[in-house]
Amino acid sequence: MAAEQVIGVDLGGTNARLAVVDSAGAFRHRESFHSGAFRDAPQEALLERLAEALRALVRNAGGSGARVEAVGLGVPGIVRLPAGVVVASPNFPRWREFPVRAGLESQLPVPVVVDNDANAAALGEQWRGAGRAFESFLCLTLGTGVGGGLILEGRLWRGADGMAGEVGHVTVEPGGPACNCGNRGCLEQYASGRGIARRVREALAAGSESALAAAEPLTAEAVHRAARAGDRVAQEAFHQAGVALGIALGGLVNVLNIQGVVIGGQVSQAWTFLGPPLIEELCRRSYVAASGTVRVVQAELGDDAGILGAARLALRGAPR
Amino acid sequence: MAAEQVIGVDLGGTNARLAVVDSAGAFRHRESFHSGAFRDAPQEALLERLAEALRALVRNAGGSGARVEAVGLGVPGIVRLPAGVVVASPNFPRWREFPVRAGLESQLPVPVVVDNDANAAALGEQWRGAGRAFESFLCLTLGTGVGGGLILEGRLWRGADGMAGEVGHVTVEPGGPACNCGNRGCLEQYASGRGIARRVREALAAGSESALAAAEPLTAEAVHRAARAGDRVAQEAFHQAGVALGIALGGLVNVLNIQGVVIGGQVSQAWTFLGPPLIEELCRRSYVAASGTVRVVQAELGDDAGILGAARLALRGAPR
Repeated sequence: MAAEQVIGVDLGGTNARLAVVDSAGAFRHRESFHSGAFRDAPQEALLERLAEALRALVRNAGGSGARVEAVGLGVPGIVRLPAGVVVASPNFPRWREFPVRAGLESQLPVPVVVDNDANAAALGEQWRGAGRAFESFLCLTLGTGVGGGLILEGRLWRGADGMAGEVGHVTVEPGGPACNCGNRGCLEQYASGRGIARRVREALAAGSESALAAAEPLTAEAVHRAARAGDRVAQEAFHQAGVALGIALGGLVNVLNIQGVVIGGQVSQAWTFLGPPLIEELCRRSYVAASGTVRVVQAELGDDAGILGAARLALRGAPR
Repeated sequence: MAAEQVIGVDLGGTNARLAVVDSAGAFRHRESFHSGAFRDAPQEALLERLAEALRALVRNAGGSGARVEAVGLGVPGIVRLPAGVVVASPNFPRWREFPVRAGLESQLPVPVVVDNDANAAALGEQWRGAGRAFESFLCLTLGTGVGGGLILEGRLWRGADGMAGEVGHVTVEPGGPACNCGNRGCLEQYASGRGIARRVREALAAGSESALAAAEPLTAEAVHRAARAGDRVAQEAFHQAGVALGIALGGLVNVLNIQGVVIGGQVSQAWTFLGPPLIEELCRRSYVAASGTVRVVQAELGDDAGILGAARLALRGAPR
């Protein structure tokens, strides 16, 4: 008898990545489509495209012959649970109070679980990645923005309204740059891909010399390449991101005394430049970190964390 | 048959307060002694004084006739659990790696539970105070310093090393005033009695006019009296404490999405001046707070929170 199989989906702002995953976390099939094209389309259009891909996958499980039992979907944005209503999504602004779970379930013969993408990434790292080492940890995803998922004693902590884990909007510097959440000096302004790019642009505008003056687009990847080539402006941008992470995490470690912090996402690829200042600042900012057991490590699963976490949610049957 | 009775002790830096408490949380007897006198005494002296008071209370339960089953003790400082070893205490600097639980149990016929005083206060408010309204909440005690205890889904969250809840050393302003924990700009530098006094002294040194120029000692109580009398320097000190609390709590509410924050301790008596700027800043700093269900309320039990929480620990038999 074949092992249980589910579909995990990581709905990114650029690409939607779908996979058939078995109960051991092995990938049986992968596919993707360009979700960015749906950014300004009517809200039903992206749902239809997703449903179409899922229907085909449920039908033949990517050719594996085994049955698909459920679908798990990670969405960038705020998701009301367990209803699976997307309250708001920065990447898909038309998805406001949009019942994604109900919309998909009406077109599929299997149950669907919807959750925030950063929560899914945390569950993925817990299941098959760097989170396996910890009972309680915070998982940060440093992508275009900064997402977070909190695992406490093995369970995803969702909070009173399902909005827990919003590490990206912790204040690092009360008078810092304005954030589109309405606050100033949010962690996201320093440690996201956008934050890194902003920092580099500011340095260039202030007259610093850098190979990045010619870089277009100014992605975290481009800045990382420049940092490896010795570019001081690029290195400094990651250093500042590390310091900001250390400040924000210092406060959280003081209050939560968790065992681990797992850091993933594109920006975390620059760990050589980001990690050491992060850990130094964290210990300066937190005597619990300095005298306790906390370990800060890179995520292990890369882009697969979100898919695996979404699959894990589907295997469990429902958000807990 | 008499209800179960225990002794709860709140070991403050100035006074130790002891009470016989029944399983419904009613006080059967109270007494206290001046613990401040033991600050620089040999580490055994305070333990002996405590043991003496407890032996007499266990013997006759304050004259109530019923038996005392256990003792719960809240200590200012870091406590290693479940051993009940005081790792360090700012108020009793000689208590370093000092086995308080073992020391008391060797002299008493009943079990003893030792925990951090802010954790005890959180348990007290949960049991009989403002925390009854919440499944998950953070309890802050704004005293000489700032203590914190975190209740998640009804249970005290202790963290990996028993050090969770250290809200007082969350960074509010990365370049702010130096704290004796080694960090700069800790919440304690703004929202504790010492922080309030520092702020007033700075304003006076800068030439602001205030009736507090003559106040000695410059306690939070004296500043509160002046604020009520219309003193702008005094009002401003509480306003700044509220803003600092809003910044620190904003980050924590974003990550934890808890239902409530309970604020107690001497400084919280000035709620009229502290509460409104706190709540305004919290909503500005946290979109989870702004759109979620969090409520920020004053503690209800005053100085009794710590005693009741310590008694609660003793009723439960052991720290969980």
